[in-house]
Amino acid sequence: MTESDHRASDHRVSSAPQPQFLVEPWCVREPELRLDRLAQSESVFALSNGHLGLRGNLDEGEPHGLPGTYLNSFYERRPLPQAEVAYGVPETGQTVINVTNGKVIRLLVDDEPLDVRYGRVHFHERLLDMRAGTLSRDVEWTSPAGRRVKVTSTRMVSLSQRAVAAICYEVEAVDDPVRIVLQSELVANEALPDLGKDPRASAMLEQPLISEEHMSNGHRVVLVHRTRESGLRMAAGMSHEVTCPDAADHALESLPDIGRLTVATRLKPGERLRIIKYMAYGWSSQRSRSALNDQVVGALAAARQTGWEGLLKEQREFLDEFWEGADVEVDGDAEVQQAVRFALFHILQSGARAERRMIPAKGLTGPGYDGHSFWDTETFVMPVLTYTYPHAVADALSWRHMTLPLARERAGQLGLSGVAFPWRTIRGQECSGYWPAGTAAFHINADIADAVVRYLDATQDERFEREVGLEILVETARLWRGLGHHDVEGVFRIDGVTGPDEYTAIVDNNVYTNLMARRNLCEAADTAMRHPDVADRLGVTTEEAASWRDAADRMRIPYDERLGVHPQCDGFTDHARWDFAATKPDQYPLLLNVPYFDLYRKQVVKQADLVLALHLCGENFTPEQKARDFAYYEALTVRDSSLSAQTQAVVAAECGHLELAHDYLGETALMDLHDLNRNTRDGLHIASLAGAWTALVAGFGGMRATRGDLRFAPRLPGGISRLAFRMRYRGNLIKVTVTGETATYELLDGPGLVLAHHGTEFHLEKDPVERDIAQEPAPAPPCQPTGREPIPRRMDPHDRSRRRVR
Amino acid sequence: MTESDHRASDHRVSSAPQPQFLVEPWCVREPELRLDRLAQSESVFALSNGHLGLRGNLDEGEPHGLPGTYLNSFYERRPLPQAEVAYGVPETGQTVINVTNGKVIRLLVDDEPLDVRYGRVHFHERLLDMRAGTLSRDVEWTSPAGRRVKVTSTRMVSLSQRAVAAICYEVEAVDDPVRIVLQSELVANEALPDLGKDPRASAMLEQPLISEEHMSNGHRVVLVHRTRESGLRMAAGMSHEVTCPDAADHALESLPDIGRLTVATRLKPGERLRIIKYMAYGWSSQRSRSALNDQVVGALAAARQTGWEGLLKEQREFLDEFWEGADVEVDGDAEVQQAVRFALFHILQSGARAERRMIPAKGLTGPGYDGHSFWDTETFVMPVLTYTYPHAVADALSWRHMTLPLARERAGQLGLSGVAFPWRTIRGQECSGYWPAGTAAFHINADIADAVVRYLDATQDERFEREVGLEILVETARLWRGLGHHDVEGVFRIDGVTGPDEYTAIVDNNVYTNLMARRNLCEAADTAMRHPDVADRLGVTTEEAASWRDAADRMRIPYDERLGVHPQCDGFTDHARWDFAATKPDQYPLLLNVPYFDLYRKQVVKQADLVLALHLCGENFTPEQKARDFAYYEALTVRDSSLSAQTQAVVAAECGHLELAHDYLGETALMDLHDLNRNTRDGLHIASLAGAWTALVAGFGGMRATRGDLRFAPRLPGGISRLAFRMRYRGNLIKVTVTGETATYELLDGPGLVLAHHGTEFHLEKDPVERDIAQEPAPAPPCQPTGREPIPRRMDPHDRSRRRVR
Repeated sequence: MTESDHRASDHRVSSAPQPQFLVEPWCVREPELRLDRLAQSESVFALSNGHLGLRGNLDEGEPHGLPGTYLNSFYERRPLPQAEVAYGVPETGQTVINVTNGKVIRLLVDDEPLDVRYGRVHFHERLLDMRAGTLSRDVEWTSPAGRRVKVTSTRMVSLSQRAVAAICYEVEAVDDPVRIVLQSELVANEALPDLGKDPRASAMLEQPLISEEHMSNGHRVVLVHRTRESGLRMAAGMSHEVTCPDAADHALESLPDIGRLTVATRLKPGERLRIIKYMAYGWSSQRSRSALNDQVVGALAAARQTGWEGLLKEQREFLDEFWEGADVEVDGDAEVQQAVRFALFHILQSGARAERRMIPAKGLTGPGYDGHSFWDTETFVMPVLTYTYPHAVADALSWRHMTLPLARERAGQLGLSGVAFPWRTIRGQECSGYWPAGTAAFHINADIADAVVRYLDATQDERFEREVGLEILVETARLWRGLGHHDVEGVFRIDGVTGPDEYTAIVDNNVYTNLMARRNLCEAADTAMRHPDVADRLGVTTEEAASWRDAADRMRIPYDERLGVHPQCDGFTDHARWDFAATKPDQYPLLLNVPYFDLYRKQVVKQADLVLALHLCGENFTPEQKARDFAYYEALTVRDSSLSAQTQAVVAAECGHLELAHDYLGETALMDLHDLNRNTRDGLHIASLAGAWTALVAGFGGMRATRGDLRFAPRLPGGISRLAFRMRYRGNLIKVTVTGETATYELLDGPGLVLAHHGTEFHLEKDPVERDIAQEPAPAPPCQPTGREPIPRRMDPHDRSRRRVR
Repeated sequence: MTESDHRASDHRVSSAPQPQFLVEPWCVREPELRLDRLAQSESVFALSNGHLGLRGNLDEGEPHGLPGTYLNSFYERRPLPQAEVAYGVPETGQTVINVTNGKVIRLLVDDEPLDVRYGRVHFHERLLDMRAGTLSRDVEWTSPAGRRVKVTSTRMVSLSQRAVAAICYEVEAVDDPVRIVLQSELVANEALPDLGKDPRASAMLEQPLISEEHMSNGHRVVLVHRTRESGLRMAAGMSHEVTCPDAADHALESLPDIGRLTVATRLKPGERLRIIKYMAYGWSSQRSRSALNDQVVGALAAARQTGWEGLLKEQREFLDEFWEGADVEVDGDAEVQQAVRFALFHILQSGARAERRMIPAKGLTGPGYDGHSFWDTETFVMPVLTYTYPHAVADALSWRHMTLPLARERAGQLGLSGVAFPWRTIRGQECSGYWPAGTAAFHINADIADAVVRYLDATQDERFEREVGLEILVETARLWRGLGHHDVEGVFRIDGVTGPDEYTAIVDNNVYTNLMARRNLCEAADTAMRHPDVADRLGVTTEEAASWRDAADRMRIPYDERLGVHPQCDGFTDHARWDFAATKPDQYPLLLNVPYFDLYRKQVVKQADLVLALHLCGENFTPEQKARDFAYYEALTVRDSSLSAQTQAVVAAECGHLELAHDYLGETALMDLHDLNRNTRDGLHIASLAGAWTALVAGFGGMRATRGDLRFAPRLPGGISRLAFRMRYRGNLIKVTVTGETATYELLDGPGLVLAHHGTEFHLEKDPVERDIAQEPAPAPPCQPTGREPIPRRMDPHDRSRRRVR
């Protein structure tokens, strides 16, 4: 995350001494309900398919941390106030809204509502099963009046049927006969808790939905609403199958903001009432009420036709196929093993069925950062998807492609050529209210272009290249060509921009930006050359392409000869170093406690910036430069952003600091399961989770891929005895298994390809190839700013929990 | 002006083809009422003594451009919204408010209200007399019913009695007998026109005053109010003397927001009703209702005791004394002659009786810039007052001294040593909502210190030095010492600040800032040495003073060897030049039409910055460097700020570009009389007006004064045949008279002193000294950006008015 408030996310604080979740390889199990951590668990247990997202709220709606039901790109507008108006700073923002909640199933036991805050909870377990794709819950509860029931529910958001979610809810009488009333609801405009002035929390918009239509019909209710300002329309419907040992009364009703099925019956001990609830959602900015209504009714019909068991089966098949090409095995560090699967599961959930919509920074797991998408998606999330579920990358980049007209308009407003993609957005318009860390961070354009290049390299998807990719490359290249200029000595400079590190802004010649822009310019020229017809349609002349190559060739990459390191940008190494010794632990994250003014003018780094260039543009640095640069920036980097640890892990591994890389891996992977930054309540850190995969595959696997050249340089830290990962590349599915001494490469599918192991190429076909890993002495470890060292992975658990408390 | 919205002021546009005001040496006469330019004339005709300000609204209250009655530092708080909250950016602002209006005298003529929009105006003239210190008005009007009256009124805000204003209002029947009703009022919470979303206009606060008390007693009414949020209390009172040929009915009443005297009578042709209205104002943040009430009643009693004629006499005496030491005579350019007196008059008005309150950017003439004070006061206004009315400088700097605790607190909040004065404020708290052009403009601290140094140099006021000056110097020196740092080569750098030019921000080693900081550091060390006892009390050790001197000695002053010019800051000359040729006339001021992002990273200068250093820190540059630097920055400077022309005038004159200097003089001097930036409606540009004096005295007079060394290098442009100015320096009052060939120096008062004429020193005592002025060939004129050339002074009037239309 890189926005100002965005970055405010990064408290690195204690998780509770007792972990909230059990460590299991394929599940996240919560053995008891922690009311104080409800909001965090709602994020962790969120289910989504990229189109529809349900937070892990309890079935009965209350208590809750934060109720949440989201539809990708369904947003409301809100004003962005400015104390002093400035040209080009947007006056209107976009905020994801909590849509009609279909998760609610309330239960009355002899007239006492099931509420875990009252009566007695004998047992309460929730389980996220990452192979089944379900969240299940088992509760045994005695009402204040002494009636005991068992409730089990299983919830899913279908990966195969995009509009559909479903719940199987069962209640069983335990000791005595009980009268049971179940109320299954659709609720619009839920009251939301006031989250205070924390800018990281979404701007809470009260009553965002205006009822347009509500109808109940037999077993089905549909509610249609639209938003007040953005004028988007949505429909939500539910349909039920009720199984009951005895006669039950049914009542179905709809009101503008409520749909409700009420089932009343009596259960004897051991008897069960079971309800299958099917939900369907749709939204549109254009389609009519009746069209949306029909769409939802149709989706419900399809879901009923498939049935609960059928949906479960489809879900598992979908996930089996995903894991077949994506699974990562980690022996020796069970927490990381669980975390990397948790990460892959949520990344899949965030993008699987987004289908030409964005992938937000928090997926559809919470309202944090207003539900916006940033550069994180292209830079940190898409690499994982590119090699594990590339279809989602094509979709998400097609969404960027769809927003080109808006980005072109924005570039025009800024006086620039080509396109200027928004720093943060839902629909495509710039929504950043603080331009030095928003609009000025032009690197997002190269990040998007790089995601295109990476996807094309991995898939050779020529249709995408011609229809989507080339236009993005061309338009972003045009931006760079116009944004930069040649100085009197003919050097091409890019002045006055902000790189990834948000503790330095509006600078000249940020190394990361310039290297990424250089690649952008070259790839645009080369790709245009491959498709002269498309390039011609886009107006690319040979002169224009030549000017891109020239700018790339003459790109300024500052280097400080005195210190033998690359300054992050012009002048950076002349600045005063931050006084880390005088900075107290509670002053982090710095942006909440010191002014930008002071951060910008000193050597202090919020998140990997030059070090990100060492990873993503490594071909521009010698190993010695990498070692020196990494050590230099390690001493300055405070990781006040959750986007940093994964990159530090990758470069630490490359530089031979394997234990340090392992520590950073732990930080990025456990961000949400351990709630390291204390804001998992607002949604998961999808990009940080992606870092679990990246730290393992690019870090310990040493994977790098460019222009058909796929290389590995595996080497494990002491705490990981075996690492195995799968990835797809150019029609091949390969598996790499690394131990302390050897690496084994297997071709699981595809025609075979040339790989490299620690610089030595070989051809991988049917037979696995095993290669030795040379042992190298560990270099002297670099230092971090005082108190900002990562939590060591190889500590005994007692010490580790102590270390987390800073 | 330098704030973002502040700067937005600078439309340079056409004044009307027919001038609104007649050109006379001592008066500003408006020969007919221009309803379309009412608000501008209200600013031009504003009367003030620095404590109380009355806009030149018509007596009868309507029509108006913008009603305005202001008390220095009487403000209301208002929220400063931010789209993304950031540490250290103030959340609360301060806004000057329109207080109880005592100017209103309504007239009914046979039941028809006198309103110039109805009936027929035969004659309407207003006259600001800059020697009398009065605004008078003559109207002859026939009501829609055909009754003709003559009205004459004269208004003053007393310079001798700080709390007091007065109006003499006479109405005379012309052709027929008429029934006359006069209503003399105090009106609180007047309805204000909506000025739209223009950020330059003051945030209009509706109904800012809460009534606390109202009373009428005999001839007197007093209203007491307080503000809602800031909790300030004010009282306004009025008292009357009525002279009438016949019997008249009187009625006096008070309501919470209104006080009213009603006088009804009949006049035969030639008969007159005359009312003298005395007004008094007081405010306090601490004093009680009754204390304030008494204060106002007392002031009214004193005014009545003095009487109208007495007040007029005191006013003239006060002004005679001022003009004796301040007048500037300009032969050959009648517009500039009038303008420089207009400027001096308003500068005096803004500071004469401020008495330990600030001097706002617009004086008390309008609500522009929220009534805030900026660096303009110290940098542009105080130099004029220092040499003409130094007492006001001591007062205004004492106000800064009083705010040291707030500035110390602000420095602490920013993590800095010493003090950090606010970029914009009324009470002393930072009120800037856009920190890159606000808080980051730390040069204001050196500007304030420099005003102290200049005042001390000119007055040798040792009591001030010990009680006020040294502490300001010490605390600002501490700021600089902590703000900068030594780099690896031992050079002292000041990184990440913003200089005067607001089209470049957050830069390293701004030359102006570094030179001013250097002077600040040296003067603090030297002044501390002169007063070891005070220095000791302030905690200054010899080590600390030594560290100031060391930082000053090692201060980085960047220089571009390739181009042979000083870059405004590190890297400036490497940036792309703004594409002036492609910029359309209606795109100025640029800040309203292009993003800060683009301005910051290119070579385009809003206002003199490096050129201001050439003027104020000229000792650091050789004549050749000045010539090259001036030419270089002329080509980049668009003057989107009204603060620029005067400095360009001074340096142009020094570099021998006398005609260009004359042009810039015209721009700065006529800013308001010609409404060049089309925002005189919001108040006068006091600092631009000050530039009229500066361009003449420092420009064509070549006056420079430092450390007891007063030098002149006079040289006139072709359009000015004679220039004479007076100034006070170290107990001397001198007069300098310059013609094309000679300069004559006269000592009007004082013990005599050493002066220099074009570098040659001489002693001035009783006898005038005449010196020749060598004729020098004019150097090749520099170029300005296309379309941004100043309006030539030596054009025939027809061409001139054409040129103004851009």
